[in-house]
Amino acid sequence: MSFRTIEWRDNKVIMIDQTRLPAEEVYLTYEDYQGVAEAIRGMVVRGAPAIGVAAAMGVALGAREIIADTFDSFYRQLENVCEVIGRTRPTAVNLFWAIERMKRVAQKHRELNLPSIRELLKAEAIAIETEDLAICKEIGRNGAALIKEGSTILTHCNAGGLATAGYGTALGVIRAAHEAGKGIRVIADETRPWLQGARLTAWELMKDSIPVTLISDNMAGWLMRKGEIQCCVVGADRIAANGDTANKIGTYSVAVLAKENRIPFYVAAPISTLDLSLKSGDQIPIEERPSTEVTAIQGVPIAPEGVKVRNPAFDVTPAKYITAIITERGVVRGDYEEGLAALVRP
Amino acid sequence: MSFRTIEWRDNKVIMIDQTRLPAEEVYLTYEDYQGVAEAIRGMVVRGAPAIGVAAAMGVALGAREIIADTFDSFYRQLENVCEVIGRTRPTAVNLFWAIERMKRVAQKHRELNLPSIRELLKAEAIAIETEDLAICKEIGRNGAALIKEGSTILTHCNAGGLATAGYGTALGVIRAAHEAGKGIRVIADETRPWLQGARLTAWELMKDSIPVTLISDNMAGWLMRKGEIQCCVVGADRIAANGDTANKIGTYSVAVLAKENRIPFYVAAPISTLDLSLKSGDQIPIEERPSTEVTAIQGVPIAPEGVKVRNPAFDVTPAKYITAIITERGVVRGDYEEGLAALVRP
Repeated sequence: MSFRTIEWRDNKVIMIDQTRLPAEEVYLTYEDYQGVAEAIRGMVVRGAPAIGVAAAMGVALGAREIIADTFDSFYRQLENVCEVIGRTRPTAVNLFWAIERMKRVAQKHRELNLPSIRELLKAEAIAIETEDLAICKEIGRNGAALIKEGSTILTHCNAGGLATAGYGTALGVIRAAHEAGKGIRVIADETRPWLQGARLTAWELMKDSIPVTLISDNMAGWLMRKGEIQCCVVGADRIAANGDTANKIGTYSVAVLAKENRIPFYVAAPISTLDLSLKSGDQIPIEERPSTEVTAIQGVPIAPEGVKVRNPAFDVTPAKYITAIITERGVVRGDYEEGLAALVRP
Repeated sequence: MSFRTIEWRDNKVIMIDQTRLPAEEVYLTYEDYQGVAEAIRGMVVRGAPAIGVAAAMGVALGAREIIADTFDSFYRQLENVCEVIGRTRPTAVNLFWAIERMKRVAQKHRELNLPSIRELLKAEAIAIETEDLAICKEIGRNGAALIKEGSTILTHCNAGGLATAGYGTALGVIRAAHEAGKGIRVIADETRPWLQGARLTAWELMKDSIPVTLISDNMAGWLMRKGEIQCCVVGADRIAANGDTANKIGTYSVAVLAKENRIPFYVAAPISTLDLSLKSGDQIPIEERPSTEVTAIQGVPIAPEGVKVRNPAFDVTPAKYITAIITERGVVRGDYEEGLAALVRP
């Protein structure tokens, strides 16, 4: 891949500014955790796995800013840092997963001195990033086996290199199928309101010379009915114990339309996206974002002033619409409750 | 209503410029048929019934420009005018219906002198406009009876006053239900790529103080699943003999999602939208519009330069997803083949 989504360099966090793609390829540098929290909230970085990496790096930055004489004082302040970062976006569970992992590292090494703990937190954040890239490649390999030669694959939003440390989850499957010479083509939903498909997915697939065609979200169903799509692959922001999957708004509609047209619908996500503490998708909190995302596009108003708006950023696709969930540890089908639990069993 | 969609005045055709709403309320004046043809192609005027009115007025304007010594010479030139207007947009059948009606008026009065024929054509175009308004009110009355008290109604695109001579078809049903004091609320799909919902439906409902909430197209399914929508009402561009209905791209998806969530899905359209010469929707031609409608919004690019695009302007909803078709002559359910044929039987 010819870009870096997020990177720790010289005790700073560098991110590609996803709000300005594809018009400009700009990299922003963050030196404190508040900046990272703002970057997550403002979607400079987005995509569940990438949010997890950013959160971990934010915690590591925060740890560097803390002045404390004792571990307890340090840890209380670290919890504040974690709380600020945790308040940015409620739906993607990877955010909380990464924060918990960072807290555990601090706790585990509470007997060490603070400079050592800070170094271990930094190493953990970088490890989360490195692991994520490796995980995406495994997801890609597992998923590519499901893709038939010559398929046209619909994807929604961006579950690509830009949504992860690199390679992507849904786009990881697509990249792996492409690299395997399967002659696939991609149809990218533009994904209103934030246009992740038009701005990010089209951009990164074109960079990698993977054939991509852009459509408005409401064209996907019609192309399925016309027989122009052979399967759908999307990412996930949180997967409940029964397989219900929260993902970008519009995913539920794609899944229903795929089922109606007998087209396989795959979810590709790392284990860190599982939240087996939730019995079903009904318990997943759904973020509502500002109305201006709907009423203006790139700052240009497209609706009458003062119009009322709904803007749920995610929806939940019930497990019954999902053909399989593709993870780095294997592919789960059918009984998700048993299959997902088995994946995480020690 | 506080605006006029299209009007014949002093031998000119005046239209509200729908490409510039809601930012500006500008009225354009056309003095020749080529201008009217361009206005239809460029979507200054759009919506199947309004396109029919515009086409008829275009033919009447064209008739005024023709110089001829005989009826045959006049009629040959009139056919050229009709062909230019007929080539603008292929899907909405009202365009061809209006043109045929104008031709029949000329033929019927071939024994009269040309100034008289010109006057009769002008009168026919104005009659088509006047009738359309009356038809919309009948559609509204027939449809409002189907709407339950306190319903939240989803509509897609703009089948409103702006898509007709006034009052609207789908929005006619909504207006009539509102006027009957049913306490309804509307959810408007923004309707990418051209944003008829955001720009036109939200605008005209707000003007009439009918409660409206704007969403991105891909939110409709999720709101249905959450129980926030009680029925869907849309317009139509062409209805085949078996009830299959061509309408704005995305309508098919709304219909599938409505069926999956057991929500009634109604089509509201005048008889002039029926094309009983077509056995099924498979035979309806689907217009593909320029890719820039998808890659830029209000002139602002939202996708990488050079990305491949699909842009079908319409889709076909199979009759099995349609709960009822609401016309000015009554509501058809169940056996559409028989029901629609009965509506037009002399």
